[in-house]
Amino acid sequence: MKIYFDCIPCFIRQALDSVCLVTDDEAVHEQVLRKVLQAASEMDLRESPPAMGQYIHRLIRKLTGERDPYREIKNHFNQLALGLYPNLKAEVEGSANPMEVALKLAIAGNVIDFGVNSQLEEASVYESIEHALISPFDGNVEEFYDAVSRADNILYLADNAGEIVFDRLLIEQMPLEKITLAVRGFPVINDATVDDARATGITELVEVIDNGSDVPGTILQKCNEAFRKRFHKAGLVIAKGQGNYETLSEVEKDIFFVLKAKCPVIAKDLGCQVGSLVLKKSTCAEISA
Amino acid sequence: MKIYFDCIPCFIRQALDSVCLVTDDEAVHEQVLRKVLQAASEMDLRESPPAMGQYIHRLIRKLTGERDPYREIKNHFNQLALGLYPNLKAEVEGSANPMEVALKLAIAGNVIDFGVNSQLEEASVYESIEHALISPFDGNVEEFYDAVSRADNILYLADNAGEIVFDRLLIEQMPLEKITLAVRGFPVINDATVDDARATGITELVEVIDNGSDVPGTILQKCNEAFRKRFHKAGLVIAKGQGNYETLSEVEKDIFFVLKAKCPVIAKDLGCQVGSLVLKKSTCAEISA
Repeated sequence: MKIYFDCIPCFIRQALDSVCLVTDDEAVHEQVLRKVLQAASEMDLRESPPAMGQYIHRLIRKLTGERDPYREIKNHFNQLALGLYPNLKAEVEGSANPMEVALKLAIAGNVIDFGVNSQLEEASVYESIEHALISPFDGNVEEFYDAVSRADNILYLADNAGEIVFDRLLIEQMPLEKITLAVRGFPVINDATVDDARATGITELVEVIDNGSDVPGTILQKCNEAFRKRFHKAGLVIAKGQGNYETLSEVEKDIFFVLKAKCPVIAKDLGCQVGSLVLKKSTCAEISA
Repeated sequence: MKIYFDCIPCFIRQALDSVCLVTDDEAVHEQVLRKVLQAASEMDLRESPPAMGQYIHRLIRKLTGERDPYREIKNHFNQLALGLYPNLKAEVEGSANPMEVALKLAIAGNVIDFGVNSQLEEASVYESIEHALISPFDGNVEEFYDAVSRADNILYLADNAGEIVFDRLLIEQMPLEKITLAVRGFPVINDATVDDARATGITELVEVIDNGSDVPGTILQKCNEAFRKRFHKAGLVIAKGQGNYETLSEVEKDIFFVLKAKCPVIAKDLGCQVGSLVLKKSTCAEISA
């Protein structure tokens, strides 16, 4: 997905919210704002929004000297989600259709996105869970089940810390031996890295790799060679969250995008309502039959 | 009031909304966005927000070739307000405290502000009227009455088209011979110009002058000499709306700011809630006793 004009005021808003979260130093706020405005005035609109996200968050890390400014937030939401895990797991296993419930919960967890909402509170996570359990999917669940059962190996691209505990519920409903979980290579916003996969016990469940990149999405040219090989070899990619959709929606590959549509631009691009539980097969998929 | 960092994403949003309202040409949308981002990256934060508003709307007028892009919107809201006028006038005159009701209605009309909300619909005007009639003022009404009765000559700075019909209700409750109404010198957003004063019959009621400027506010250095003289000579200035507050809040003069606080930045600067009916004496006023 390319950058829409409507993304641009939102980039500026996000950059400001984010630097305010990391430091109280107004001189740094101003420096970040001016540099992001300047970069935005010259940016290539054929790029995807996470390319700008990478620029903004590299800048904030550089100017504040914080290597991982969202570490505390990530730890907090990992712990919150781990606290919810036993009940959610019971909810999945006690239901008539465990896979469907797990899928809904995995999408509910996608609300934990500090790129979209830097003011996110715990209450939003509870609301997102309740909303997901009673909402229909925007997409074809049978097609998803079918793709999962047919694929030999599945690359699951995680999105955010905290959210990966919700992903775990879904992964546990799939044949574990088929699954590799990929996380970001370096800290960016509250995106999950290997530290989060370890902290939430997922490394004991499936193989976890990192993509070698600090883009809040998956721009293949910016990922390392090892990740790209795994991506191309995968029979199916499950791409979680907005950032992965934005960066992979035009890549020719069998991909299922699994996300909550959290902004009007994404919702319009996907042809759904804001808040929808999206389960979308890539329209760029090669014919793989 | 200086430009706050939080104003900046809002400028970009406003510029985009505004150019989309004026033309469907995406090449022009992009040109406006890039130029506004560039200008914002270099702007002087000691200026007031309407200085940026002037830049943005000059740019949009220049790039679209539209001298008065909001003319249709201004006519529409003038007519809407004129249609409401007889009933509102009856409401004022039938009340126990006509001045207070007129003041509330004048503030209600301040909702007609396409700088803050380019999607404004008629329903918001009705809601604003209902809200104002049942809401308290944030400010001292007695002090306002007293200032009006003591001043020899009053300069009333209008804000937007449509809204000036609501101002008329207030002006009619004051000694007409004391009042001069000032409007913008040239079109900018939906701010009232002499055309709007004429179209709504106010020119028949009080003297109307223009300030010679296309700033969506009152930056004295950018107004013409004739206006500045009248401003300095006035015993009291009634400054309507956010733009006039933003540009005059640090000017040493007896000013009453009369407005609806429509954005969180203004509300914070004024120390009130968003939506408040503000009636605020300038804290920079010279001692005039």
